[in-house]
Amino acid sequence: MAGVFHTTLALRTALRYLSPSCTLTSAATARLLPPGSRKLLLPASSVQSGVCSRRLHAGAGGPTPSPAAAPDRLPFSKVTQEDLDFFKKVLPGRTITDPDLLEANNVDWLKSVRGYSEVLLRPQTTEEVSQILRYCNSRNLAVNPQGGNTGLVGGSVPVYDEIILSTALMNNILTFDGVSGILTCQAGCILENLSNYLEERDYIMPLDLGAKGSCQIGGNVATNAGGLRLLRYGSLRGTVLGLEVVLADGQVLDCLATLRKDNTGYDLKQLFIGSEGTLGVITAVSILCPRKPKSVNVVFLGCETFEQLLQTFKLCRGMLGEILSAFEFLDSECMRLLNTHLKLPNPITDCPFYVVIETAGSNPTHDEEKLHNFLEEAMTSSLVTDGTVATEDTKIKALWSMRERVTESLTHDGFTYKYDISLPVERIYQLVTDMREHLGDRAKSVVGYGHVGDGNLHLNITSPAKDPALLAAIEPFVYEWTAGCQGSISAEPCWTPRASSTLIKPCQIIYGD
Amino acid sequence: MAGVFHTTLALRTALRYLSPSCTLTSAATARLLPPGSRKLLLPASSVQSGVCSRRLHAGAGGPTPSPAAAPDRLPFSKVTQEDLDFFKKVLPGRTITDPDLLEANNVDWLKSVRGYSEVLLRPQTTEEVSQILRYCNSRNLAVNPQGGNTGLVGGSVPVYDEIILSTALMNNILTFDGVSGILTCQAGCILENLSNYLEERDYIMPLDLGAKGSCQIGGNVATNAGGLRLLRYGSLRGTVLGLEVVLADGQVLDCLATLRKDNTGYDLKQLFIGSEGTLGVITAVSILCPRKPKSVNVVFLGCETFEQLLQTFKLCRGMLGEILSAFEFLDSECMRLLNTHLKLPNPITDCPFYVVIETAGSNPTHDEEKLHNFLEEAMTSSLVTDGTVATEDTKIKALWSMRERVTESLTHDGFTYKYDISLPVERIYQLVTDMREHLGDRAKSVVGYGHVGDGNLHLNITSPAKDPALLAAIEPFVYEWTAGCQGSISAEPCWTPRASSTLIKPCQIIYGD
Repeated sequence: MAGVFHTTLALRTALRYLSPSCTLTSAATARLLPPGSRKLLLPASSVQSGVCSRRLHAGAGGPTPSPAAAPDRLPFSKVTQEDLDFFKKVLPGRTITDPDLLEANNVDWLKSVRGYSEVLLRPQTTEEVSQILRYCNSRNLAVNPQGGNTGLVGGSVPVYDEIILSTALMNNILTFDGVSGILTCQAGCILENLSNYLEERDYIMPLDLGAKGSCQIGGNVATNAGGLRLLRYGSLRGTVLGLEVVLADGQVLDCLATLRKDNTGYDLKQLFIGSEGTLGVITAVSILCPRKPKSVNVVFLGCETFEQLLQTFKLCRGMLGEILSAFEFLDSECMRLLNTHLKLPNPITDCPFYVVIETAGSNPTHDEEKLHNFLEEAMTSSLVTDGTVATEDTKIKALWSMRERVTESLTHDGFTYKYDISLPVERIYQLVTDMREHLGDRAKSVVGYGHVGDGNLHLNITSPAKDPALLAAIEPFVYEWTAGCQGSISAEPCWTPRASSTLIKPCQIIYGD
Repeated sequence: MAGVFHTTLALRTALRYLSPSCTLTSAATARLLPPGSRKLLLPASSVQSGVCSRRLHAGAGGPTPSPAAAPDRLPFSKVTQEDLDFFKKVLPGRTITDPDLLEANNVDWLKSVRGYSEVLLRPQTTEEVSQILRYCNSRNLAVNPQGGNTGLVGGSVPVYDEIILSTALMNNILTFDGVSGILTCQAGCILENLSNYLEERDYIMPLDLGAKGSCQIGGNVATNAGGLRLLRYGSLRGTVLGLEVVLADGQVLDCLATLRKDNTGYDLKQLFIGSEGTLGVITAVSILCPRKPKSVNVVFLGCETFEQLLQTFKLCRGMLGEILSAFEFLDSECMRLLNTHLKLPNPITDCPFYVVIETAGSNPTHDEEKLHNFLEEAMTSSLVTDGTVATEDTKIKALWSMRERVTESLTHDGFTYKYDISLPVERIYQLVTDMREHLGDRAKSVVGYGHVGDGNLHLNITSPAKDPALLAAIEPFVYEWTAGCQGSISAEPCWTPRASSTLIKPCQIIYGD
């Protein structure tokens, strides 16, 4: 019924230290930001539409936090009437204290964790965010920045009574340059709205997510969201050209450049990409957008083995080349859940593995010809056993939903343990097979899907109810397995689990002395 | 005869503070790295195949530093016989003290500046780099990391007697994954060698530079080199997946991930990209490489006006779409220098502006068809007046040399003042026109060329000899003009000139209190 997040690192601990995805191999460890810098960090559990870092496994009955596993509430101040008066003066009509109105912001999308915030602030401008943070910093009030609250790992909601700072009303597009394709907008713009705005101007956003209808660009950047177009347009580290960020003490850091190249000084904005609100609140983003492709095709294919699926990927990269924009996979267990829980019929014959391939190009005839040649070759060489192609929008959406709605089908299957792992692409499915064998009939379903092109596996394990024994069987098995392949347990937005950090070479946390 | 670099910021000053391309708009300024962090910085003028930051205008007679304008030598230790004994023990046969052998490492490529180092160290391993830096740190010896020494702004050579730490012998390819296209190699690998290695395996490097024959990948990353393929494959911030860096005290920071996605903790490696050796010495790089295109075409076109050139760019992006891999321009003044000094004939009729367009795709027939359609449209609508197409390697190289050898032709034209500027693409040439008008006959040549696709202008002004009056006419005019357009004066590797930093909004330096 509910998704979970399996880490034990208090985010507040993370606030104190840089925790780079690096390992220091000297005997001595280094403190890269000394304690004095802490004043620049947000004073509270601070995640912008991202993830949290606590063990709050919801029961079947709904989001019920597990106080034993949650981090301690640090000695932040409690919100007083005076504080509320201040907020109401700065944000008249946008300081929400009605518990019913706060409910949606206190509970995450999967309804797996809940916080107990009593104040929701909805600023519209950077200046308002600055005033709020400066005030909260001076009053030692904890703040939880929140974007679209679409994260799947329970990180976008408070743990205790942190003030929720929502960017939802910061939804203005500031500028768009039709020559360079550079868009500058406030952080609260919803991804799909930006996409629609751009499509009218013959451009698209360089990222696309299943949650596009409600996730916000600020949250996307704060969590360094990857999504479905990364294979083609690269990560936000390349496409985000500028950021405006408000630091915890209210200072506004203006890195909102709209230049494709800028090498003056250190590129500080990179630190905020993927730092999930822990270093500041992103208030505006400038991003380089690709031209809207004139032709889009989607193919749904079936493969007998994962090895054939990888061969298909290789063939596809060679023959589709520059028009390949996505290569996603799901296994037959995913298909079973889509059939059972969402009544989505399999568009092709049953196979152990399925692939969704998208092409996007500038010449429909050329694209179709490339696709035709690729499919002929894939069929002839028996890499794929069945398939279907879509060129119209409705059918394209229907085929994409087979991949995009797996997450939803899992929520109907039971209590879900979710892992988002980066692995060398050739090892990507072995973990699912090994996990299935390792767990035997202790798990209800063990499913694998994800972004083959990015070496990114979504491993999900369901169980009829919360099951500590099952969790003990999954962890640290999954972490050790991933570490053994030099993988990362946080391919997409997620923080390094503290308890496991020592196992995972590329993810070790550097502590100060 | 010699190129110059026109800034006054002592690099040693830069070492002490973060100087992000951001502006803090609060009344208070923020110290982002307090002085305590300085121990992690390199103790000396530390640039890895990059740029320096001093005013050392060479006379026509060769590189003669101007002590009056050079930064003071800070109280670093002098190299003693004991130090040499240590280096010789760690690097037997690779500790160079012969002045003749040191000459090439003391002088930059343009022969505009020179240092007086008496020791050149040529480590082969990360462990050796670590030992050297740990020792130098303990002895307070200044170190100048050096890559291929191909930088055009005099930053890759010492100012005084800094020890030169060359990565030239760290030239091993460590791994290459033929499925993911991820290459891991030592920092001293020469870009062209990597390109050749990859081409045999059906891949290419995501960056290409005129200096590819001698520049090193570590220096490319340390200076965040852009180059000719940025338009297609994006910046190193997206393609560099991992770095290994040795900090000033010898600690090895292992961020050498080879995963396309990794969101564990802060992405610290980004700080080293473009930081030019000031934060550490890059010793290894992992990078995501694109597949080798099956078809490459190059077109050389002439346009009557810059407005038509921009229209050509727009048309080109629409019609060539995903196969467009470069769109470069040069003006008629560049062509004159190519003709005069290098005897390179104009391949088409004389025009005020010239464009080099490259396409790279997976299907030769499709690519040629797209190119044909584009050229027909560009000719029919009178956007271009003349042009020539190359599909064979030799002719492709010949056309590319019209763009790549402009730098060389300038060195024959006289004393050159070089500026590398990012501007909104529609303003890119106005600066050249305004500068030409502003300088009148005080300049010998005022030429403009660069990467239209990236909004990146190379503005070069020549004079028969060093001319302080001319320099005074150029600066701060060029900086104020750029600031007025929200541009950057450091599009490609270059540090913010300290003296001008207050003029340039996106480049302000943040100082500690």
